[in-house]
Amino acid sequence: MSDHHVYKKVEIVGSSATSIEDAINNALAECSKSVKNIEWFEVQETRGHVVDGKVGHFQVVIKAGFRIQGS
Amino acid sequence: MSDHHVYKKVEIVGSSATSIEDAINNALAECSKSVKNIEWFEVQETRGHVVDGKVGHFQVVIKAGFRIQGS
Amino acid sequence: MSDHHVYKKVEIVGSSATSIEDAINNALAECSKSVKNIEWFEVQETRGHVVDGKVGHFQVVIKAGFRIQGS
Amino acid sequence: MSDHHVYKKVEIVGSSATSIEDAINNALAECSKSVKNIEWFEVQETRGHVVDGKVGHFQVVIKAGFRIQGS
Amino acid sequence: MSDHHVYKKVEIVGSSATSIEDAINNALAECSKSVKNIEWFEVQETRGHVVDGKVGHFQVVIKAGFRIQGS
Amino acid sequence: MSDHHVYKKVEIVGSSATSIEDAINNALAECSKSVKNIEWFEVQETRGHVVDGKVGHFQVVIKAGFRIQGS
Amino acid sequence: MSDHHVYKKVEIVGSSATSIEDAINNALAECSKSVKNIEWFEVQETRGHVVDGKVGHFQVVIKAGFRIQGS
Amino acid sequence: MSDHHVYKKVEIVGSSATSIEDAINNALAECSKSVKNIEWFEVQETRGHVVDGKVGHFQVVIKAGFRIQGS
Amino acid sequence: MSDHHVYKKVEIVGSSATSIEDAINNALAECSKSVKNIEWFEVQETRGHVVDGKVGHFQVVIKAGFRIQGS
Amino acid sequence: MSDHHVYKKVEIVGSSATSIEDAINNALAECSKSVKNIEWFEVQETRGHVVDGKVGHFQVVIKAGFRIQGS
Amino acid sequence: MSDHHVYKKVEIVGSSATSIEDAINNALAECSKSVKNIEWFEVQETRGHVVDGKVGHFQVVIKAGFRIQGS
Amino acid sequence: MSDHHVYKKVEIVGSSATSIEDAINNALAECSKSVKNIEWFEVQETRGHVVDGKVGHFQVVIKAGFRIQGS
Repeated sequence: MSDHHVYKKVEIVGSSATSIEDAINNALAECSKSVKNIEWFEVQETRGHVVDGKVGHFQVVIKAGFRIQGS
Repeated sequence: MSDHHVYKKVEIVGSSATSIEDAINNALAECSKSVKNIEWFEVQETRGHVVDGKVGHFQVVIKAGFRIQGS
Repeated sequence: MSDHHVYKKVEIVGSSATSIEDAINNALAECSKSVKNIEWFEVQETRGHVVDGKVGHFQVVIKAGFRIQGS
Repeated sequence: MSDHHVYKKVEIVGSSATSIEDAINNALAECSKSVKNIEWFEVQETRGHVVDGKVGHFQVVIKAGFRIQGS
Repeated sequence: MSDHHVYKKVEIVGSSATSIEDAINNALAECSKSVKNIEWFEVQETRGHVVDGKVGHFQVVIKAGFRIQGS
Repeated sequence: MSDHHVYKKVEIVGSSATSIEDAINNALAECSKSVKNIEWFEVQETRGHVVDGKVGHFQVVIKAGFRIQGS
Repeated sequence: MSDHHVYKKVEIVGSSATSIEDAINNALAECSKSVKNIEWFEVQETRGHVVDGKVGHFQVVIKAGFRIQGS
Repeated sequence: MSDHHVYKKVEIVGSSATSIEDAINNALAECSKSVKNIEWFEVQETRGHVVDGKVGHFQVVIKAGFRIQGS
Repeated sequence: MSDHHVYKKVEIVGSSATSIEDAINNALAECSKSVKNIEWFEVQETRGHVVDGKVGHFQVVIKAGFRIQGS
Repeated sequence: MSDHHVYKKVEIVGSSATSIEDAINNALAECSKSVKNIEWFEVQETRGHVVDGKVGHFQVVIKAGFRIQGS
Repeated sequence: MSDHHVYKKVEIVGSSATSIEDAINNALAECSKSVKNIEWFEVQETRGHVVDGKVGHFQVVIKAGFRIQGS
Repeated sequence: MSDHHVYKKVEIVGSSATSIEDAINNALAECSKSVKNIEWFEVQETRGHVVDGKVGHFQVVIKAGFRIQGS
């Protein structure tokens, strides 16, 4: 293992009818199915659908960062 | 009705002593009194008043998008 | 006291395992120990650590604004 | 009439299956039904829906500027 | 009246041959004819026309924020 | 299938000697070979090569969003 | 000739009653009269005049990059 | 004294009922009470309160830069 | 003369001990010595030198736009 | 092979205890293990860890662009 | 000690006649005289003075982040 | 000579196989052949070509500022 690491960021969009925090966790949960070792996230945008004058779903665009394995 | 739609975005600021999500819903509720068919929102800014070292009110600036009727 | 005020903004980062709102309040609570009269905050960035595919801590970067005493 | 004018900008989203230019014109046509004297537009965002790996509709967010009547 | 307020922001462009401050006031004066209770403004852009190598008119794009009545 | 979806965005650059719209469609066509269910795109940058004082190729940087399968 | 090149970017605004692509080509054609070897362009802004509720002219602000001769 | 200097920037908000320039000077005057050797400022935001459809106070957010003593 | 025009923008910095407006006019006056037909300006940045806790000079970075002769 | 190419950009973070240039090269080296034909990079952010008041590691976020094979 | 930490960011400008990396380290060294436990930095701007057509000093604006003691 | 100066900024792109600093110096050296009295530069973008998974050339986009002679 080298003395430095390399990370990759992927951009994902999670949604939730409940909260912004829940939308972030939903995005991370789905992303974790294929990517190991996610270490951090950065919120890029917060938006959502509106139904009958209320938030239907929060949609949170995040970047998730993970270490490239072997690096 | 044409085969394309035209939407308008308006910028509104909702507030809530409770949460960011609640501030967004308060903005949408007020906006829905005069505008029908809001379809989405986009958070522009999140800020708030501070009282005695605690958040007094969250203030969330959103853009709300709705289809122009008849379009 | 003059007829105009001068404010200062400081940039702080609060964290919370629970919610974005809680991270903001934690930042304000700590900041209030040394700064009196914080009047408002502005969210700059929302990010966080991820542990086992879930949010470990939300980290919220805010600017806190307070009136310079005597101004 | 004063020697200075005041303008207002509104944010609208036009769409078209054909082109970006057509989406802009569709937004302006709809907006012109209620607003007289639109003088300029500024493109804010260009995006669209994708259907079967092709652009279904271009969606162009513009700001339209018009002089406030009487100003 | 609820314990929270909802505000709207509109984007207007004022002009003045004299000064940036005057252009802002001209925009607010015109806007106040139709909107009550403007509480704050935010400068978005400062630009202008040039005539014979001198500023002909300053044009200042502002957002004006006002409380939605009844909120 | 859960009651919420997770999307991913990838950043691609399409080019075309003909038009901006064509460059977007070329990017989507290529991307669709490996990614199913692209639902939307967002233009990030428009640029191009110049040959003999004319546009040689338009290059359009887009983000393409698609639902992660199974989410 | 050195083993590295130096480029300059100039900012120009082209217009066209027809299309965004045509406005870019008009800007490049004019710029090429005085500058040799333009190699690329980057779109900065897309805007235009509106006449009778339709686009009168598209105005596209681009940066054009060219190699400084001898570098 | 070393052959290089280190500067710090602080963010302050000045206000004035008169002008933008005066708001900047008020911010600098207050800041100068505790910080010596302010060398430059950068305007970040210009905004203000509105009273009866007129500017009540201009509020100008600036960054003030000063050399750290001894550096 | 063609039915479309091409403009160029140059970036200049004017200064003044008096006001932001004066700094803009000084930039335009100097620029007009070599460039004919400046038609508009756009403020990019407002900053300045500080002397003894007061603004010594306002420095205003503008883009000045002018029609390319013959276009 | 068509007469146009399609590129993809991926966002990676390289680190180095030595220099910014080295961090970029480390990111590219790691990325090249799985991606062929990287043609360019764009620096997005430069940051780093601090240990005992000195830079421990530079961390450089880049976008790396490569041609999609077969396009 | 609580289970969450609060950090502060300060904005400093380091300079060096040698390199960007050296300018960052100079800023951190000076900042470390008064602030303990700086943990990270973020580059905001890179600029410099020019003397006789060569870089005289690199000036790098960074934000330095440190944990507020006791948090 | 008046008591105020006017500066111009030009945007240039330097490249170097060695370092970011060297690319900046190459840009300044070339620019100095035609422009006297460059006083400062501001980095706008850092990017580069990649060859065989390594940086081939760093390309640094800078703005160079110089005083207009006689101002």
